[in-house]
Amino acid sequence: MKPIERFLRETDRVPLMPMPTPLHPMHYQPSGKDVSLLIKRDDMTGVGPGGNKIRSLEFLLGEARSKGASKILAAGPEQSNLCALTAAACAKAGLDCELIINAAEPARKEGNLLLEELLGTKIHFLGPCDGTVRNRRMEELAAAYQSAGEQVYVVRNGATTGRGALGYTAAVVEMKRQCEDLGIGRMTIFAPGGNGGVAAGLIYGNQLMGQPFRIVIVSVEDDRETLTAHIRSTISEAEEITGLPMDVSVEQAAEITDAYRGGGWGENTKESQQAVLSFARSEGIFIENVYTSKVLVGMMDWIEQEKVSGPVCYLHTGGLGSLFAQY
Amino acid sequence: MKPIERFLRETDRVPLMPMPTPLHPMHYQPSGKDVSLLIKRDDMTGVGPGGNKIRSLEFLLGEARSKGASKILAAGPEQSNLCALTAAACAKAGLDCELIINAAEPARKEGNLLLEELLGTKIHFLGPCDGTVRNRRMEELAAAYQSAGEQVYVVRNGATTGRGALGYTAAVVEMKRQCEDLGIGRMTIFAPGGNGGVAAGLIYGNQLMGQPFRIVIVSVEDDRETLTAHIRSTISEAEEITGLPMDVSVEQAAEITDAYRGGGWGENTKESQQAVLSFARSEGIFIENVYTSKVLVGMMDWIEQEKVSGPVCYLHTGGLGSLFAQY
Ligand SMILES: Cc1ncc(COP(=O)(O)O)c(C=O)c1O
Ligand SMILES: Cc1ncc(COP(=O)(O)O)c(C=O)c1O
Repeated sequence: MKPIERFLRETDRVPLMPMPTPLHPMHYQPSGKDVSLLIKRDDMTGVGPGGNKIRSLEFLLGEARSKGASKILAAGPEQSNLCALTAAACAKAGLDCELIINAAEPARKEGNLLLEELLGTKIHFLGPCDGTVRNRRMEELAAAYQSAGEQVYVVRNGATTGRGALGYTAAVVEMKRQCEDLGIGRMTIFAPGGNGGVAAGLIYGNQLMGQPFRIVIVSVEDDRETLTAHIRSTISEAEEITGLPMDVSVEQAAEITDAYRGGGWGENTKESQQAVLSFARSEGIFIENVYTSKVLVGMMDWIEQEKVSGPVCYLHTGGLGSLFAQY
Repeated sequence: MKPIERFLRETDRVPLMPMPTPLHPMHYQPSGKDVSLLIKRDDMTGVGPGGNKIRSLEFLLGEARSKGASKILAAGPEQSNLCALTAAACAKAGLDCELIINAAEPARKEGNLLLEELLGTKIHFLGPCDGTVRNRRMEELAAAYQSAGEQVYVVRNGATTGRGALGYTAAVVEMKRQCEDLGIGRMTIFAPGGNGGVAAGLIYGNQLMGQPFRIVIVSVEDDRETLTAHIRSTISEAEEITGLPMDVSVEQAAEITDAYRGGGWGENTKESQQAVLSFARSEGIFIENVYTSKVLVGMMDWIEQEKVSGPVCYLHTGGLGSLFAQY
């Protein structure tokens, strides 16, 4: 057992996922290319509509519980997956949750907002404002609850923190075992880069587990330098938490591309819009516009350009809740 | 290996599910009652938004493929889970699918209709008419395609046929193994009765596997006698397909209640509406109004009345796709 495995086993964690998510072959297999396509089903994390943030929340809510928190705060835009998944995970963990959303309250709740309504989550709708203002309002609210004697735990930066990133460090351990069981050789994983939490956890875990995978991060939001800086600082936080340094730079440990983000967060590209359709039509699995479709476009382009060979894994990070409000 | 296991292994089947669905403890455990609550996650069957019909479709599409069918037809009401799941399963299996829906085409597609649109499924909107008319139109369409030289396979009666029911016969084998692995003793399973396909498959499988479970069927639609008759005739069809008779009557093999259906299919009760909320708030898992909530209400009432003890399993049959159009 590697030191990081020991750390992950011993640190505070709320088990949320019913089991390892499936890793299975894709139906579509490109002809004339030396690849075999797989999909890692993190859309099936088993809480709420599923998705990547459940992995981070295992470690964040674990910390919250160990600190005796009675109230969890999280913030995001109107169709934030993080917000809906935090609310669902808190329900399962028996923790009280409030959300701070930088949008006006719509007359009719759709997608993730509907799920939050069913969950009975208290939502602070701020009206339109930017993420910085929203996050400051969350901190002010936390401070107010604290002064009133409540133990508050804040899920910061969309769960992209050193501790939140450990979710995908643990996912590396899980996938390594699955690949061994399934007899899959060195696999290339394509994963999204938004705030960079998935990426940081994967890259850090891959290094500390002896590089079982090749990792390609597809930015859905920022340029390469900005995303790399986010990943770097999140990994530094993780190193501080675990006491286990990563010995190489982010650039050495993974490939990061910003070629598929188009206008950035929430801005569809022609290709990503098409990918939502073509993927459903070949796999019977739904992806969405903001995150998962851009990763798929990047992966297919790298395959087309023969920049990858062997087993290639599409990490599906979910987002089904938001899909219903994207059309 | 029991004869039914051999049959299930050898018959035509398209593998659709990535793995056994999870069986895990519920967060809520009633105090003062001698029960431990579990949930079987058939909302996580891994195709489309997930749900019970994926199990039936493994056997139905298996037959379709072995008959050389090039086109699959299915029919249902506007938010039919069967329709969306058939379309998604056909995508994954590489089969062409058309749907016949007894409703007018809405200006804006929601819930399962949105998923069908993303899947690119051809839909024949009949406008408002009853299920009998709709099903006749499906048969006429099938006949027309046949005369034009296409091999058509019709998914009849919402997949509740002898062959479709084998999906839940296979689920009994799967759950028996899970219970053995997890050291769970004789478990009571609460499952829905709509057309009766889930119920027929479970009851038939449970008898042929030596009664590992106690089975309680909660009608969401018809009175007890009508539902029992549907189950009986579906089991007869299954017996004919497998050649393996069930030696007792449906009434001896399972308990069937119609006490929680309220006004019938699609008619919420006060309790079922509340169950959608309370379940999300204690488990972080979503159920919906038409099917799954009524089963939960029935199960909780039987526990309250102490009509069950020991391990009690809620079979969650999915329906997430329709939830987004129910509010
Ligand atoms: C579905 C989905 N995929 C990917 C991401 C990106 O994760 P990260 O912010 O950790 O880069 C998110 C973040 O919200 C998400 O919701
Ligand atoms: C979510 C869900 N649960 C339960 C059922 C009932 O299954 P059956 O018709 O086999 O009784 C259905 C059927 O459509 C369904 O969609």
